[in-house]
Amino acid sequence: MINKLNAKIVKTNAPIVVGLDPMLKYIPEHILKKAYSEYGETLKGAAEAVFEFNKRIIDATYDLIPAVKPQIAMYEQFGVEGVIAYKKTVDYAHEKDLVVIADVKRGDIGSTSEAYAVGHLGKVQVGSKTFAGFDADFATVNPYLGTDGIKPFVDVCKAEKKGIFILVKTSNPSSGEFQDRIIDGKPLYEHVANKVREWGEDAMGDAYSYVGAVVGATYPEMGAALRKVMPKTLILVPGYGAQGGTGKDLKAFFNPDGLGAIVNSSRGIIAAYKKEEYAKFGDEHFEEASRQAVIDMREDIKSTLN
Amino acid sequence: MINKLNAKIVKTNAPIVVGLDPMLKYIPEHILKKAYSEYGETLKGAAEAVFEFNKRIIDATYDLIPAVKPQIAMYEQFGVEGVIAYKKTVDYAHEKDLVVIADVKRGDIGSTSEAYAVGHLGKVQVGSKTFAGFDADFATVNPYLGTDGIKPFVDVCKAEKKGIFILVKTSNPSSGEFQDRIIDGKPLYEHVANKVREWGEDAMGDAYSYVGAVVGATYPEMGAALRKVMPKTLILVPGYGAQGGTGKDLKAFFNPDGLGAIVNSSRGIIAAYKKEEYAKFGDEHFEEASRQAVIDMREDIKSTLN
Repeated sequence: MINKLNAKIVKTNAPIVVGLDPMLKYIPEHILKKAYSEYGETLKGAAEAVFEFNKRIIDATYDLIPAVKPQIAMYEQFGVEGVIAYKKTVDYAHEKDLVVIADVKRGDIGSTSEAYAVGHLGKVQVGSKTFAGFDADFATVNPYLGTDGIKPFVDVCKAEKKGIFILVKTSNPSSGEFQDRIIDGKPLYEHVANKVREWGEDAMGDAYSYVGAVVGATYPEMGAALRKVMPKTLILVPGYGAQGGTGKDLKAFFNPDGLGAIVNSSRGIIAAYKKEEYAKFGDEHFEEASRQAVIDMREDIKSTLN
Repeated sequence: MINKLNAKIVKTNAPIVVGLDPMLKYIPEHILKKAYSEYGETLKGAAEAVFEFNKRIIDATYDLIPAVKPQIAMYEQFGVEGVIAYKKTVDYAHEKDLVVIADVKRGDIGSTSEAYAVGHLGKVQVGSKTFAGFDADFATVNPYLGTDGIKPFVDVCKAEKKGIFILVKTSNPSSGEFQDRIIDGKPLYEHVANKVREWGEDAMGDAYSYVGAVVGATYPEMGAALRKVMPKTLILVPGYGAQGGTGKDLKAFFNPDGLGAIVNSSRGIIAAYKKEEYAKFGDEHFEEASRQAVIDMREDIKSTLN
């Protein structure tokens, strides 16, 4: 899957992942109205609106991008109905041949991490049969519990040719509270990065490992350092756009081969129609605003890398 | 909810939480057979078996214990159907007036943590109405992202009178890889513990905070140190039983008032019938083995504390 993802990045010339984090406030009135009129102002109504919103954004952008990243929290907030919308989103993205990065940030002790890995990336045994639960292609994973929380994910990735992105340095303002603390002369995130490289050596694709890392665009100087620590690691870079990261911040995350990073934008794409520069599309054509925002993001990144 | 949990601990004289982590291999043949005959060897069949298993264990133990802790990974492995079984388990435990600790180990950047908090503990706004998605009473939370990943949970806890347990020192063998690293003369977990105390001061119940901590029974010496760092923090202690923690390891986690800790056992209770000492109950009466295992655990802890 890491090879497929890199091939799609090359083909689209867009190291971009669209974050499908559909808060209700991003969803245009006409989509909400239709869902509520059919299912009422209920969890199911909200979940249907979320899926319809995602579907239209996927339809408007899938030819331009290699991957989407649904943030499962935005679905879990609607309980079981939300999780159903999450699964429908994963399946619909696959219909359009998109790589799906499940932003689930799971992580637990061994047998429990195994269950998460099986549920989100692998197949579970039920009697004499096996089934994929959520069937994403990549998942994000939290490293706080150490190797035995990560190893079961790596094992499933090797068996299923899927991948993970491990949180190294997150994009949020207080990420430094623990991640930046100095241990033996180096920040914690660099110790985590060293482990990511080590875990990944055992699970290599053609040029990059199945084991990737998350490093926020909001910390470009750390991106540069971490790029060197993990040369064969694909870095998932959140924080571009709404969180403050800009195109020029991104160069440090890429390798000289032009690969090595994939940049996420969520709000900046899915709620583009709410921004002044895309207001001309109007609520009714929000998906066209999203398409234009993807094109503009691609150009911003391209101009940075050249 | 922290007051209710403590009151129930006092009433049952059992600082015990039963971990509902139902792997299929723990579920007796007759339960599986019935579910498969009705729904086939499918994800729904597995999920029905899981719920029936949980239901019987709850029925056999609810009068002895204050709380249950479903581990959501064990449900997510079965995809949407598993999540439905998770929600039914939460609701059934509530019918029996048990406190439900959702072991979800979520944690993300601000707005995303807010969605998790809303989904698992709070209420989400849909049009003019509000709905509880999963409606647990407590959730476990991962601290790696720092204050702005935690704060939204604390806010929901204050609004809904619910609670969280933040991972401080986990019970698994490689928990030390990052958690034990020394920063300014103290291990990382102690820095996290200091933050837990600080976050919790702002959200106090009668004697303990809404903000609890997770510290593994497998590290009793750390438990003693952390008990002092977080005097008003309820500590959720996993790792008793199957993971190697014993009754005598537990004393350090409690305050002189006999409160301050709640000890989880999962496999040791739910799969008790598979252990030699409870084999006499047989597969058919697995829930009675679980009941006996709860009574024995209660006595083990009582003898430790006296």
